[in-house]
Amino acid sequence: MNYPSILVEEAVNELSKFPGVGKKSAMRMVLHLLKQQETDVTKLGEAIIKLRTQIKYCQRCGNVSDTDFCNICNSIKRNQHLICVVEDLRDVIAIENTGQFTGTYHVLGGLISPVNGIGPSDLNIENLIKRIADENTTEVIMALSATTEGDTTVFYLSRKLKDFGVQISTISRGISIGGELEYADEITLGRSIALRIPYQG
Amino acid sequence: MNYPSILVEEAVNELSKFPGVGKKSAMRMVLHLLKQQETDVTKLGEAIIKLRTQIKYCQRCGNVSDTDFCNICNSIKRNQHLICVVEDLRDVIAIENTGQFTGTYHVLGGLISPVNGIGPSDLNIENLIKRIADENTTEVIMALSATTEGDTTVFYLSRKLKDFGVQISTISRGISIGGELEYADEITLGRSIALRIPYQG
Repeated sequence: MNYPSILVEEAVNELSKFPGVGKKSAMRMVLHLLKQQETDVTKLGEAIIKLRTQIKYCQRCGNVSDTDFCNICNSIKRNQHLICVVEDLRDVIAIENTGQFTGTYHVLGGLISPVNGIGPSDLNIENLIKRIADENTTEVIMALSATTEGDTTVFYLSRKLKDFGVQISTISRGISIGGELEYADEITLGRSIALRIPYQG
Repeated sequence: MNYPSILVEEAVNELSKFPGVGKKSAMRMVLHLLKQQETDVTKLGEAIIKLRTQIKYCQRCGNVSDTDFCNICNSIKRNQHLICVVEDLRDVIAIENTGQFTGTYHVLGGLISPVNGIGPSDLNIENLIKRIADENTTEVIMALSATTEGDTTVFYLSRKLKDFGVQISTISRGISIGGELEYADEITLGRSIALRIPYQG
């Protein structure tokens, strides 16, 4: 492409590094930015830089945090002996938004994926084992994706944690609430029959 | 949403101001940024800030430029008496990429749209009239979208330019090259029959 300005070219190149953003979308973003107030665009640029340069990770659970230990690990209202293992930050936010969970988290930072060259040592697993050894943990809930990578990770962790005498559970799988049977995929439907639960009428 | 960090919250809020980017996409962008090198993220942030604070607009044609007059207006290889009127920067890039146009541009910065409260005075029109009065322009090509706004703008401009004795043309409309007839919309197809051209065999 012929860009009329080096500044535009650089901004397009940088913005198109976002996953799912091509040159055309980046160009649309550039046009949007050019129409905004200078202070607003500066605020965006600074928010991006500050995010990366000032972010901290909780030394206990690995979640992002503004301090050395995150709000959830610091909270006396949370059950500090219950750990929910998740892949990343988005899962923490999704579970927090349900308002149903009162324990703590442990953020792995990814899933075991031999195809992508991600092994256990690339993830925040050693810290999890240390926590369970030190913290009198009663239960570990595996809240990982229902994919090969997720299942592999659950399998690996359950083996690692076997000797600690901690209860391990996984979140339930099945038909979504409000979901129609005929649109569910066969594997989910099959599993939801196999894993049926007693009716509490 | 409950964000685990003010830095994440601010970045999500700023990124979700891009058109078509919601909170979830912004969160995905934040996760991507957190996984990148600090220098790369700083480069992105600075490219965004520099884009807005250092960009110039060509004093003649209104296109973005790194200098007071853009490369195209400065070029002796371009026909400076032929003006192609476009809506914005993207159209300049699209036409330049065809390699078929050797004249200059005039960037309106939008289209007349009473619904959105955009009138002629909000666009770079006065400068266009001044150019045509001063520059011995031979032809003005209207390369605007085939929408109500585009047609309204062409109509307005053609009235304004009537007394200057300059030739006014619009880009041709019709079936795309390689396009199949049966998939063309009726209006395009109808117009392309009405505006048929002699076959040059």
